[in-house]
Amino acid sequence: MTERAVILSIGYELLQGRVINTNATYISRKLSLLGYEVKAIISVGDNYNDIGKALDFAINALGARIVITTGGLGPTHDDITADAIAKYFRKKLVLNKEAYEMIRSKYESAGMEMTESRVKMALLPEGSKPIPNSVGTAPGIHLRLELVELFALPGVPKEMEAMFEQYVEPILRARTGIQISEGYLEVMGVPESGIAPLIKAIAKKYPIYLKSHPQLHEIESPLVKVYIMATDKERSKARSLCLEACRDLENKLRTLKEAKIIRSCECS
Amino acid sequence: MTERAVILSIGYELLQGRVINTNATYISRKLSLLGYEVKAIISVGDNYNDIGKALDFAINALGARIVITTGGLGPTHDDITADAIAKYFRKKLVLNKEAYEMIRSKYESAGMEMTESRVKMALLPEGSKPIPNSVGTAPGIHLRLELVELFALPGVPKEMEAMFEQYVEPILRARTGIQISEGYLEVMGVPESGIAPLIKAIAKKYPIYLKSHPQLHEIESPLVKVYIMATDKERSKARSLCLEACRDLENKLRTLKEAKIIRSCECS
Repeated sequence: MTERAVILSIGYELLQGRVINTNATYISRKLSLLGYEVKAIISVGDNYNDIGKALDFAINALGARIVITTGGLGPTHDDITADAIAKYFRKKLVLNKEAYEMIRSKYESAGMEMTESRVKMALLPEGSKPIPNSVGTAPGIHLRLELVELFALPGVPKEMEAMFEQYVEPILRARTGIQISEGYLEVMGVPESGIAPLIKAIAKKYPIYLKSHPQLHEIESPLVKVYIMATDKERSKARSLCLEACRDLENKLRTLKEAKIIRSCECS
Repeated sequence: MTERAVILSIGYELLQGRVINTNATYISRKLSLLGYEVKAIISVGDNYNDIGKALDFAINALGARIVITTGGLGPTHDDITADAIAKYFRKKLVLNKEAYEMIRSKYESAGMEMTESRVKMALLPEGSKPIPNSVGTAPGIHLRLELVELFALPGVPKEMEAMFEQYVEPILRARTGIQISEGYLEVMGVPESGIAPLIKAIAKKYPIYLKSHPQLHEIESPLVKVYIMATDKERSKARSLCLEACRDLENKLRTLKEAKIIRSCECS
C-alpha cells in the first residue's frame, strides 16, 4: 500500500501572502515521484498550538506516516519549530552535540563566536538526528518514531532543496520501490466540458490517475491538457499502462468532430 | 477581535507538485490586508473524506469563521467540491436556477447546448448563492451558515481573482474595519542570528508583528530584511505604531558596529 505523507509549511509569511509556497510544490513533486501519496499540504503560523493541531490532523486524521516540515528552524525568537515538534511528541528539547558542532564550525570559520541565538539552532527534540545543512547554517531534524518518520527542514528554498536531495531523498527512496510513468496529451477545439464524459470513461476503465487541465478559455478558444499517471512496482508495466490508457483516450477524442490532437500521447 | 479565516485549496495537482499554489498566496494576502487572521492554508485532493476532514479541522480545530475554497468546480467527474461541501454541511445538492441560467447563456452565445457535464456546474448546496464568473463558466458558491461564511471559487487563477475582487472582497470588507500599516527595513553586514536579540526586544515592547527574512547568506554576505506590521481601527494610529517600532529597531541596529542600514524605515 502506498504510504501517506503530509507536508507542513510553517511561517506567518505564508499566511499573509508575502511568500509563495514553492517549497511545498517541490516536496510534493518529489514525494509523488518517490511513490508516496501526499494527503495534504498544510501551512500554519509560527505558533505552538497551531503546529501541534496540524501535526495531530496530519498523523491522526489523515494517517500520515511521513511528515515533512519546512520553516522555523532559524535563530530568531519566533523560530519555534524544533520546540513545537518536541512538545507535540512529548520529547525534551536538548542540546544536540552533533548539531552544535555543525553550527559552531560554520561560525568559527567566519571568525564569529557562538551566541545564545546561535546555540538555539542546536536545540533538537531528544532522539533526533541533525540533518546537515550544506548551504546555510541551521541543521534540520530527523525524528524516527514508532508510527511516524518526521523530517524538519529550513524554509530557505536553496537550503531545503539541498538537504532534501542529500539526506531525505535516499531514505525515502529506500522505503518504497514504486515506479511512476507520467504522460500528457493536448487537444484543441473542444471545451473541457465536452471531453469530460470521455475522461470519465477512461478513468473508470483503467487503474490510473487522470486529470484534465483547461489551458485557454473554455468556450472561446478551448485547449485542454490531459495528464495521466500510472504506477507499478515495475517501470515497464507502469509505462505500458500509461500508454495504453492514453492512446485509448486519444482514439476516443479523434471521434469528436471539432477535436484536434495537438500533442499526441507520450509517457515517461 | 480579528476574525479567523482558512483557505482550502482543492485538487490532486497541488499534492503532486504539478501546480504552484499561487491562489492561496493571492487570497491570504487579500484576507490579511482586509484585517482577517489567516490561521491556515490547507491543500487536499478531490476526495470527499479529505475535503470533509479539512473543513472540520478548519472550522472546529482552528476556529475559522471565513472559509474560502478554490478548485473542483468544473464540469469533470472529479470536480466534487460543491457536492463535498453539501455533504459536510448536510445540505442537499440542488439545481440552482440562477447558476443554471448563468451557464446556459454562456454556452448558448457560443452555439453550444447544455449537456450533463455542463448542467453539473449548476448543482449547488441548498441555500447557496451562485457567485458570477465573469471570466470563465463555472459559477462559485456563497454559503452563509450560522457560524461560518463559505466562498467556493474556481481553481483557474484569472477566474478566481476576478470573482474574489468583484464579489467576495466587498462582502469581507464590510465585515471588518481594520486598517493595516506595513513597513520594511534592510540591514547588511550582520547575520540574522546577530540581530535576533534586538528583534526579540522590539517584538516584546510593541503590539506589532515583526519578522526577519535573511536574503543572502547568513555568514558570507548577510543581508536581512525586517518586516513590520501594525494594525488599528484607525489608519493613522496603525502607521504611527509601525513607524515608532521600526525606528526604535533601526536605532538599536545602528549601535552594532558591522551593521549598515541599506533601507531605512518606511511604513505604508
